[in-house]
Amino acid sequence: MPRNDGRRAEQLRPLKITRHFTESAPGSVLIETGRTRVLCTVSVEEDVPRWLVKTEPPVGWVTAEYGMLPGSTPDRKRRGEDSRAIEIKRLVGRSLRSVVDRALLGPRTLWVDCDVLQADGGTRTAAITGAWVALADAADWLVSQGRIARSPLTGQVAAVSVGVVDGRSLLDLDYSEDSRAAVDMNLVMTGDDRFVEVQGTGEGATFSGQELDRMLKLGRSGIRRLLAAQRAALAG
Amino acid sequence: MPRNDGRRAEQLRPLKITRHFTESAPGSVLIETGRTRVLCTVSVEEDVPRWLVKTEPPVGWVTAEYGMLPGSTPDRKRRGEDSRAIEIKRLVGRSLRSVVDRALLGPRTLWVDCDVLQADGGTRTAAITGAWVALADAADWLVSQGRIARSPLTGQVAAVSVGVVDGRSLLDLDYSEDSRAAVDMNLVMTGDDRFVEVQGTGEGATFSGQELDRMLKLGRSGIRRLLAAQRAALAG
Amino acid sequence: MPRNDGRRAEQLRPLKITRHFTESAPGSVLIETGRTRVLCTVSVEEDVPRWLVKTEPPVGWVTAEYGMLPGSTPDRKRRGEDSRAIEIKRLVGRSLRSVVDRALLGPRTLWVDCDVLQADGGTRTAAITGAWVALADAADWLVSQGRIARSPLTGQVAAVSVGVVDGRSLLDLDYSEDSRAAVDMNLVMTGDDRFVEVQGTGEGATFSGQELDRMLKLGRSGIRRLLAAQRAALAG
Amino acid sequence: MPRNDGRRAEQLRPLKITRHFTESAPGSVLIETGRTRVLCTVSVEEDVPRWLVKTEPPVGWVTAEYGMLPGSTPDRKRRGEDSRAIEIKRLVGRSLRSVVDRALLGPRTLWVDCDVLQADGGTRTAAITGAWVALADAADWLVSQGRIARSPLTGQVAAVSVGVVDGRSLLDLDYSEDSRAAVDMNLVMTGDDRFVEVQGTGEGATFSGQELDRMLKLGRSGIRRLLAAQRAALAG
Amino acid sequence: MPRNDGRRAEQLRPLKITRHFTESAPGSVLIETGRTRVLCTVSVEEDVPRWLVKTEPPVGWVTAEYGMLPGSTPDRKRRGEDSRAIEIKRLVGRSLRSVVDRALLGPRTLWVDCDVLQADGGTRTAAITGAWVALADAADWLVSQGRIARSPLTGQVAAVSVGVVDGRSLLDLDYSEDSRAAVDMNLVMTGDDRFVEVQGTGEGATFSGQELDRMLKLGRSGIRRLLAAQRAALAG
Amino acid sequence: MPRNDGRRAEQLRPLKITRHFTESAPGSVLIETGRTRVLCTVSVEEDVPRWLVKTEPPVGWVTAEYGMLPGSTPDRKRRGEDSRAIEIKRLVGRSLRSVVDRALLGPRTLWVDCDVLQADGGTRTAAITGAWVALADAADWLVSQGRIARSPLTGQVAAVSVGVVDGRSLLDLDYSEDSRAAVDMNLVMTGDDRFVEVQGTGEGATFSGQELDRMLKLGRSGIRRLLAAQRAALAG
Repeated sequence: MPRNDGRRAEQLRPLKITRHFTESAPGSVLIETGRTRVLCTVSVEEDVPRWLVKTEPPVGWVTAEYGMLPGSTPDRKRRGEDSRAIEIKRLVGRSLRSVVDRALLGPRTLWVDCDVLQADGGTRTAAITGAWVALADAADWLVSQGRIARSPLTGQVAAVSVGVVDGRSLLDLDYSEDSRAAVDMNLVMTGDDRFVEVQGTGEGATFSGQELDRMLKLGRSGIRRLLAAQRAALAG
Repeated sequence: MPRNDGRRAEQLRPLKITRHFTESAPGSVLIETGRTRVLCTVSVEEDVPRWLVKTEPPVGWVTAEYGMLPGSTPDRKRRGEDSRAIEIKRLVGRSLRSVVDRALLGPRTLWVDCDVLQADGGTRTAAITGAWVALADAADWLVSQGRIARSPLTGQVAAVSVGVVDGRSLLDLDYSEDSRAAVDMNLVMTGDDRFVEVQGTGEGATFSGQELDRMLKLGRSGIRRLLAAQRAALAG
Repeated sequence: MPRNDGRRAEQLRPLKITRHFTESAPGSVLIETGRTRVLCTVSVEEDVPRWLVKTEPPVGWVTAEYGMLPGSTPDRKRRGEDSRAIEIKRLVGRSLRSVVDRALLGPRTLWVDCDVLQADGGTRTAAITGAWVALADAADWLVSQGRIARSPLTGQVAAVSVGVVDGRSLLDLDYSEDSRAAVDMNLVMTGDDRFVEVQGTGEGATFSGQELDRMLKLGRSGIRRLLAAQRAALAG
Repeated sequence: MPRNDGRRAEQLRPLKITRHFTESAPGSVLIETGRTRVLCTVSVEEDVPRWLVKTEPPVGWVTAEYGMLPGSTPDRKRRGEDSRAIEIKRLVGRSLRSVVDRALLGPRTLWVDCDVLQADGGTRTAAITGAWVALADAADWLVSQGRIARSPLTGQVAAVSVGVVDGRSLLDLDYSEDSRAAVDMNLVMTGDDRFVEVQGTGEGATFSGQELDRMLKLGRSGIRRLLAAQRAALAG
Repeated sequence: MPRNDGRRAEQLRPLKITRHFTESAPGSVLIETGRTRVLCTVSVEEDVPRWLVKTEPPVGWVTAEYGMLPGSTPDRKRRGEDSRAIEIKRLVGRSLRSVVDRALLGPRTLWVDCDVLQADGGTRTAAITGAWVALADAADWLVSQGRIARSPLTGQVAAVSVGVVDGRSLLDLDYSEDSRAAVDMNLVMTGDDRFVEVQGTGEGATFSGQELDRMLKLGRSGIRRLLAAQRAALAG
Repeated sequence: MPRNDGRRAEQLRPLKITRHFTESAPGSVLIETGRTRVLCTVSVEEDVPRWLVKTEPPVGWVTAEYGMLPGSTPDRKRRGEDSRAIEIKRLVGRSLRSVVDRALLGPRTLWVDCDVLQADGGTRTAAITGAWVALADAADWLVSQGRIARSPLTGQVAAVSVGVVDGRSLLDLDYSEDSRAAVDMNLVMTGDDRFVEVQGTGEGATFSGQELDRMLKLGRSGIRRLLAAQRAALAG
C-alpha cells in the first residue's frame, strides 16, 4: 500500500541541497525534502560564550537556533521562540558539536541558524542534515581565510525521522503522516554509522521493543542515503 | 561618475519578483533588488484585532511584521524585534492599508510578513514593493475561494529609497552607499502618483529645500518603474 | 569494579517514596533516590487549556512543570525556567499523558509540579516516577470527591537513566557519573513493558547499535523494579 | 473659516517655555503649546554606550526617551513603552544629534527625557522644540562646571506638525484636528532653515506633490517662529 | 540644634497643594513638600478587575501606580517599575482604599497615578497625601456627572515620614536626612486619628520600644497638620 | 473563647526547626509552624553585587528570595515572582542584614532562599525565623572552612505576626484567621528586644493607638519564645 504521496515505507522524499543560497554568511544551505524547506546559515563570531572564556588551551563553540517563518505553515505561526523551538535548537547544537573538534576550531563561535521557509514535517531533521553542509562550507571558508589550519569537522552527521502510522513503520514522515503518527522518532547518526541522538516519543501511545528495532533499522538505512547526498552536494 | 556597481545616479538595481515562492501561504513573493532579498508572505486570519471586533459594518485589518534572518548580514543579526524593526513594520502596514478597502475585505486580518533573507540596503522599500504583489495574490485567492466578492485592493503601492551621498542625489541605495549617505529618504507612492509616505532623515547632517525637491523627483521616477514591474509580475 | 558509591552497574540507588508529604495538594509525593530528592505535587483545576475548550465530548489535560530550588545544588541555581527545564517539563507531561484516559478525566486539568529539593543526578526520571504516584493519589481523591466515576489512569509509568561511563553501561547515574558520561539515556516505560520515551544523547561522543541495545536492556530491568516500588508505595 | 479654537490656518498655538522647571536635572524645561504640556529634562552621564567606548578620539552621545504620564489623556494611558513611543524617541534623538558636535561633547552621554504631562496633539514636535532648550541649558551647565571648554551645540533645532484637515493645510494641529487629518506631517528644521527630518504620512489617504509643497511651506514658517521663541527663552 | 534647612525636629517642610494641575484627568493634584514634587492624577475606568467582575452587589476598586521621572533625581533614574516602586504602589493603594466605600463607588476603577517630578525624600507619603485630594476631586466629578449618588469617600487619609537621625527623632525627612537615618518610619492615618499603616524599618540598625513611641507621637502630630492642609486645599 | 485550633490568643502554633534538611547547601533549615512549612537554604557566592565591588575595605552582602511552590496552596499558585513576593524578599533581606557584620563577612554574598512547601499563614515571619538559623549554620560552615575568622552574626533575629480578628488581638495567625483579620501586623525583633521592622496594615480597616500597643506587646512576647526555640535548635 503506497503512502499518500506514492512513496514506499522505506523511501525518502525527494531531496535537494543548494549551497551558497545567500552570500552574506560563509555557510548558507537551502535544504528541501519534499515540500519542507529550511535555510541553514553559519556565521562566525570571533568570541566564545562566557563560560569558555578562561578555558586553556582555548576551545570554540557551536550553537544553533531554530525558527519558523510566520508564513511557513498554512495557519500563520506567531513569531518568537516557543518551547518546541528551544528543544529543537538544543538538539541541533548537540548533534553538530558531536563532529566538531573544538580545540581545532579555536576561540570562536559558529552560529548555526536554521529557519524554516516552508514546513511539511521533518523540519528538525532537515535542519541537521542541511546545517552540516553549511558547517562544512563555513569551516572551509575559515581555512581559506587562514584563520584555522584545517577544518575542525571530524566527520559527517545527518538526521531523519521515522514513525509508526496506522501500525506501519514509515521513513521520513511528511506533515500529514506526522500528525497521525502513534510514535515519532528522530535519529541523528554520524558518517561511521554511530548514534548521536535517539529520540523516540509516543504521545498518547506506546511502542514495543520490536517496533523500536524496526524503526532504528529503517532510520539507519535512510541516514546512509542522506550522508551520501551531503557528500554529493559538497562534491558538486 | 558611475556608482560602485556601475549604475547611474537615477538607475534602479536589477529587480526580480518571484510569485508563489512558497506554497504554504496564499501570497508569497520573493523580491530581489540587487543583492537584497526579501520574502513577503501574506496569511489570512478570519478574525480582527480586539479594537475592531464591534465595528459595524464590519471592517478588516492589514498588519505587517518585519524581520531579518540572523545570517542575512555579514555580522550575524541577533533574533528578536528591535526598535528599528518596529518602525519598519509600522511603515509597511500603513503603506499597504492606504490601498485596501477594509470594508470590502470584511472581518478578517491580512498578516503581511516581510523577512529579509539577505540585506544589502533598501530592505524596507523592497518589503513594501514585494508585499503589495503578495497582497494582490492573497486577495485574488480570497476571491477564488468565494470568501469575498472582489479584490479589496484599490490601487498599487510601491516604495524606493533615495539619498545624498558625497553631495550627489542617488536612487535606490545599496548598503555601501546607505552607510555613507548624509541624507536618507524613503518614498512610498501609489499607482496614481500620489504620496503615502515621505520620510527624509539626516543623521548628523541636514538638507536644503532644493535637495529635498531633487530627491523627491528622483524617487518619483524610480517608483514609476517599480509600479510597472509589479504589474508585469502579476501579468506574468 | 564497584561504582563510587559501591553499587554494581545494574543496581538502582536506594529508593524512598513518601506519599502525602504535604496536605495542601491532593497528590503530594516526595521521591528520594540516593541523594536526589524531588517533591511532586498534583493540583486539580476545573478548567482546560484554551485549545481544548470546545472539544466534544470534553476531554481533560495533564501538564507538568519542573523546577530546581536555588539551594538544591552546591552552586546556587538561579530561579526561573531555563531551556533545560522546558525540555524536562515537556517530557514529564508527555510521559504521564500516555497513561491517562483524558475522556474519563473530563474537562479538568491536572497540574503536575516537580520541584527538586536536592539534585544529585536523575532528577527528571525521579520526577516521572514520583509524579505517577502523586497522580494516582490525585485521581483517587477525585473519585472520592465524586467528581469522576473512576480513576482515569490506564496503567503505570516510570523512568530511569542509563549511561556509558568509562566504557561501561551503568544504571541510574548519580551526578558524579552523569557529568563524566559519554552517553546519557533516559527511558520512560509503562507497566506492561512498553516504551513511552527513548532519549539517548551523546554530547561530544557517539554510540554504536550494540551499546544502545545494552543500555535499553539495563534500563528495562531497572524500570521493572521502579514499577514494583510504585505499587508498594500505593499499597502501603 | 476659523479653526475650532479660533486660529487661522497658519497660526501656532500659544507657546510657553519655562526653564529650570525642576532643579534636579541640569536641563529642565516645561514646554506648553496650547493644552499640550511636555517636561523635557537633560541628565548627564559620564559614560558612553558600549559601541562607542573604544572610539578614538572619544565622542559623546545624545539619546532620548519619550513617555506619556497615565493621566495625560482623557482615557488613561497604560504605563510602558509602546511602538509609537519607540518611533518618537528615535526621532527626538536623531533630531538633537544633528546639532551636537559629539567630539566637543567628549565621552559622556546626554540623556534627554521627554514626559508628556498633558497631551493635546503635537507632543513629539513640542518635545523636540523644548528639549533643545533644555539641551542648551545642560550644555551651559557643563561649561560652567569646567567639564567642557565650550557648548557642543552647533545650532538650533525645532519641530512642528502640519496636516491636511477637510482639504485645508493647517499648522500645529491640536488633537481634535489631528484625529481627523487625512495627512499628518512632522517637520524638524535647524536654525539655518535646513531640514533634519521630513515625515509625511497619509493613513488611509494619500497626498499630491502640490499638497506636499504647501505643507512644507506652512511648516517652515511655523518653525521660524519657534526658533525665535527658543532664543527668547534662553535670553529671558 | 536646627536641621540643615533650619527646621525644628517636629516641623513639616513647606507644603503646597495645587488642584487641577492638568485638565486631562478628573483628579489632578501637584503636591510640593519642600523640594519634593509629586503629580497625582486620578482617572476613572468604567470596569473592574477580573476577580471582582462577578461580585454581587457590585463593588468598585481603587488601585495606584507610582513612578519617578528619569530627571527627578540628580543621578538619572532608569525608567520602569522596580521592586521599590512595587512596594510603594501597594502601600498607596491600600491606604486610599481604607477610606473608600467600594459599594458606593459602584463597578468602576479609580486609577491613582503618582509620578514624582522631583525627589527630595518623602515621595511616598507625599503621594498618599496628595492623592487623597485628587481622589476627592475625582469623586466629586463623578457625582457632578450623575454617575454616582454621592462621594464614596468615608474620610480623610494622609501620610508622613519620621526617622531617627544622629539619635534624634525628626519629622518629615528630606533626602539628606533620610540617607543618614538609622530608622525610617512611614505613618498613614485617617482623619479620625486612627492608623492605616505603620511601617518602621531599621536598615542596619534597630530601635527600642521607647523610640518607637516617640516616632509615633511625632508622626501623629504631623499628620494632623497635613489633614488640615488637605481640607484647606479642598475649601480653596 | 478558644481559637479554631484550640489555641489561646497569646499562644504560638507548634514549632519545629529541622537543621540540615538538605545537604547541598551549607545552611538548610525546614521550619514548621503549625501546617506552614518553609525550607530556608543559605548558599555562599564568592562575589558581591556590582555596586559593592569597589567598596574599601571590602564588605559582603546578604540577599533573600522568597517563593511558594505551586502545590503549597489549595488553589495552585502560578510560578514566578509576583509583587507580594518582592515585598517579602526585601523584608527578609533587610531583617537578616540587621544582625550581620558585613565587614566581617568579607567580599562574599549569602543567598538566602525561602521556599514555602506548604502555606497556612505566617510564611514570611516563619521564613525570617528559620532563615536566621540557616544563616548561623552557613556562617559556622564558613568559619570551619577557614574562609572567615569568626561568625559575622552579631545577634539573633526572629519574626511573628499578630492581628486583630473579630475585635481580639491574636498572636501567630493561621490562614483562616489571617483572611478574616481587620489588621495584620508583622514584627521583626532582635535577641536584645529591639525592633528591626514594624509593619502594621489595616486593609479596609483602621486601628487605634491602643490596639497598636496591644499588638506590639503580644508580638514581643511571642518573639521571645521564638528566639529561645532558635537557640535550642542550634544547641540540639
